[in-house]
Amino acid sequence: MIKVGIIGFGTVGAGVVRILIEKASELEAKLGFPIVIKRIADLDIKRDRGIAVSADILTTRAEDILDDPSIDIVVELIGGMNPAKDFILRAIEKGKHVVTANKALLALEGEDIFYAAEKKGAEVGFEASVAGGIPIIKAIKEGLPANRINSIYGIINGTSNYILTRMTNEGMEFPDALMEAQRLGYAEADPTLDIEGIDSAHKLTILSAIAFGIPLSYNEIYREGIKGLSSLDIGFALEFGYKIKLLAIAKRSNSEVELRIHPTMLPLNYLIAQVDGVYNAIYIDGDSVGSTLFYGRGAGDMPTGSAVVSDIIDIGRNITSGSIRRIPPMGTSKRMPLKIRAMDDVYSRYYFRFSALDKPGVLSKISGVLGANNISIASVIQKGRKQGEAVPLVMMTHDALERDVRHALKEIDKLPVVADKTVYIRVEGGEGNATG
Amino acid sequence: MIKVGIIGFGTVGAGVVRILIEKASELEAKLGFPIVIKRIADLDIKRDRGIAVSADILTTRAEDILDDPSIDIVVELIGGMNPAKDFILRAIEKGKHVVTANKALLALEGEDIFYAAEKKGAEVGFEASVAGGIPIIKAIKEGLPANRINSIYGIINGTSNYILTRMTNEGMEFPDALMEAQRLGYAEADPTLDIEGIDSAHKLTILSAIAFGIPLSYNEIYREGIKGLSSLDIGFALEFGYKIKLLAIAKRSNSEVELRIHPTMLPLNYLIAQVDGVYNAIYIDGDSVGSTLFYGRGAGDMPTGSAVVSDIIDIGRNITSGSIRRIPPMGTSKRMPLKIRAMDDVYSRYYFRFSALDKPGVLSKISGVLGANNISIASVIQKGRKQGEAVPLVMMTHDALERDVRHALKEIDKLPVVADKTVYIRVEGGEGNATG
Repeated sequence: MIKVGIIGFGTVGAGVVRILIEKASELEAKLGFPIVIKRIADLDIKRDRGIAVSADILTTRAEDILDDPSIDIVVELIGGMNPAKDFILRAIEKGKHVVTANKALLALEGEDIFYAAEKKGAEVGFEASVAGGIPIIKAIKEGLPANRINSIYGIINGTSNYILTRMTNEGMEFPDALMEAQRLGYAEADPTLDIEGIDSAHKLTILSAIAFGIPLSYNEIYREGIKGLSSLDIGFALEFGYKIKLLAIAKRSNSEVELRIHPTMLPLNYLIAQVDGVYNAIYIDGDSVGSTLFYGRGAGDMPTGSAVVSDIIDIGRNITSGSIRRIPPMGTSKRMPLKIRAMDDVYSRYYFRFSALDKPGVLSKISGVLGANNISIASVIQKGRKQGEAVPLVMMTHDALERDVRHALKEIDKLPVVADKTVYIRVEGGEGNATG
Repeated sequence: MIKVGIIGFGTVGAGVVRILIEKASELEAKLGFPIVIKRIADLDIKRDRGIAVSADILTTRAEDILDDPSIDIVVELIGGMNPAKDFILRAIEKGKHVVTANKALLALEGEDIFYAAEKKGAEVGFEASVAGGIPIIKAIKEGLPANRINSIYGIINGTSNYILTRMTNEGMEFPDALMEAQRLGYAEADPTLDIEGIDSAHKLTILSAIAFGIPLSYNEIYREGIKGLSSLDIGFALEFGYKIKLLAIAKRSNSEVELRIHPTMLPLNYLIAQVDGVYNAIYIDGDSVGSTLFYGRGAGDMPTGSAVVSDIIDIGRNITSGSIRRIPPMGTSKRMPLKIRAMDDVYSRYYFRFSALDKPGVLSKISGVLGANNISIASVIQKGRKQGEAVPLVMMTHDALERDVRHALKEIDKLPVVADKTVYIRVEGGEGNATG
């Protein structure tokens, strides 16, 4: 019998409890051992979650779980940094195993937790921390261990993807799409974590550590959110045959890794470009397996609960078969000392939208600056004619260096014929970059 | 140290050997123990596979592997029924663990193998038997164990999918597309297994056993191949907003399961309908996780090798951590006695193409027979007018019972106004059937 204590009886906690209670006999038949919820701790134990939980197992004190020697696995679902970290470290100290969905905590302070777990021989399960119900951590650690991962493209924030989907399909502007997302409960009152790409960066930190064996590198991830996007650029992207997604990108080249979160133009015919609404998807290119894609719900009580319970089952199987830490939490016995490439040194294709005054010689001036900075133009769209006024001049480039692009745009934005700050969006795929 | 013997040094065997040799040190760093190829058996040990294999480990006698007490894991990659089954049973008898990619053998005689393995306490890994490099067996067994699986839609035969993709995108007819597939090495000289849906049925047998905990049920799978498809129907499907895929379908409703392989019309906006060429994808709907999709290469030396090596690693980890059969091969300790529903009792939507003579009253006669058989029409397309000649009359139905459909079509095909056998294709999705 595996005894579980759950700290945090919110949305995900309720999903986990529902699965463990309603499927108790099914799970026992499958596993050959029962999983029992010994205790659930939450500050609010009065609210009815619509699940038949005996009142005696509810407590407002996390200590009742942390100090209970009969509990094998502590499930931390309160989120945030503290007291979540404190609870996890105390659980490990007490010889318990830990399951958590806390991506922010793992991304920022995960090394402390993994270190403590290693010292005490504890398990740390965190499948639910990335992409909700999609078993992506297991897929990378155990499904694709024969691969050197070349690249990862992830749509791993459902809120941003929902907003971009509404903007793309209905021509909405960002503030309206955000309001819609908030009205439907897909975005929080303070949407900063989602729309600034911070949540995606937390998840990419975890994914890249698993995929490349590197340390958790949150602070080295380049990050741009979706606040600045306008439906004008989404429309031009479609004209070029691209969709804009908030993409988490990790690419490896020999001893270096690129880690970045930013709005990204993707060819319309890419499978990952079809992933709309609140859904998540992770594209992985491995050197043996080639292109793979994993798709599903990135949030919600039951999808995330599905992932949490898969971790409880995994650890339960290790306990009953006597194989604790059969696989290290990060999937590897040895970390890899790969360098994270500075954003300035990243090569990408670019979309530019210049606010050019409609005067003779503008195109030649702009393209002159681009050429002088080693940026070569792949295609151009010029729309509208309003003599003397600013019109959008839109370009797609071939591969260029980020440093050169920033330098060129700084110069271009100073030109008297340029009326406003140039919009630029990075482009992936196309040009023989095969990505499913 | 884990010692492996590989029987079968063909395409997949070469992929496995390449991974294990070229990544030996990377894998050892990751796992904390080395995986060593002790022996490779093949009838042809002269051919150069382009891999640096020492000649002393090559043998033409499988016995050199089966009788070597130092070998922990036997990898069977010769395919076919015998001697593959014999080798596997002998390996198990000798106390070895087994990894195989042999879907036909597992689908037809897997119960014997799993029974022998249970008796001897041996592991049987078969990730590579379904969908090549996609870690779908692990995803179902270990990623989604908290779910009752409601339905599976699988594109699990790359050859058929390649042929259908060419027919769809270029309007090719089946024989030409098949020839193209053969020319490119995607189809065998005798393509029967692929185009008749037999290979898909082998894989669905394995998938459904894992997903539902039922016995291997190859003989109860309803099966239709793609040979009879014409570009005419693919064209009409597109007009209705559908693509035709050879789909492996498994659906559970309480105590019954539907298992079927047939050409299927899927809404164009479904993610799985976008899966083209030789790629595979498996859509899984679980009661907790909701819609998920797993996509990747279903064949090839390196993708399949990636899956085989993941099994070797899994079993190697069980050996080194002393947790053999930590998870039963079918993922469950207890089989479920679900009934396989007869095809006659299956409900589906249908596409019909009648070869109707262009005479007054034809539509009324045909729809009269349909109505009398409880089949209601959702939409109709009638094309061309050639007085007195046969023209295609195309219909989409609402949900209807297969038995009623067969009965109705038998009657309709006897009508004097119907010039040829009616074409019918089953339709999934749409009508509120949310499938990613």
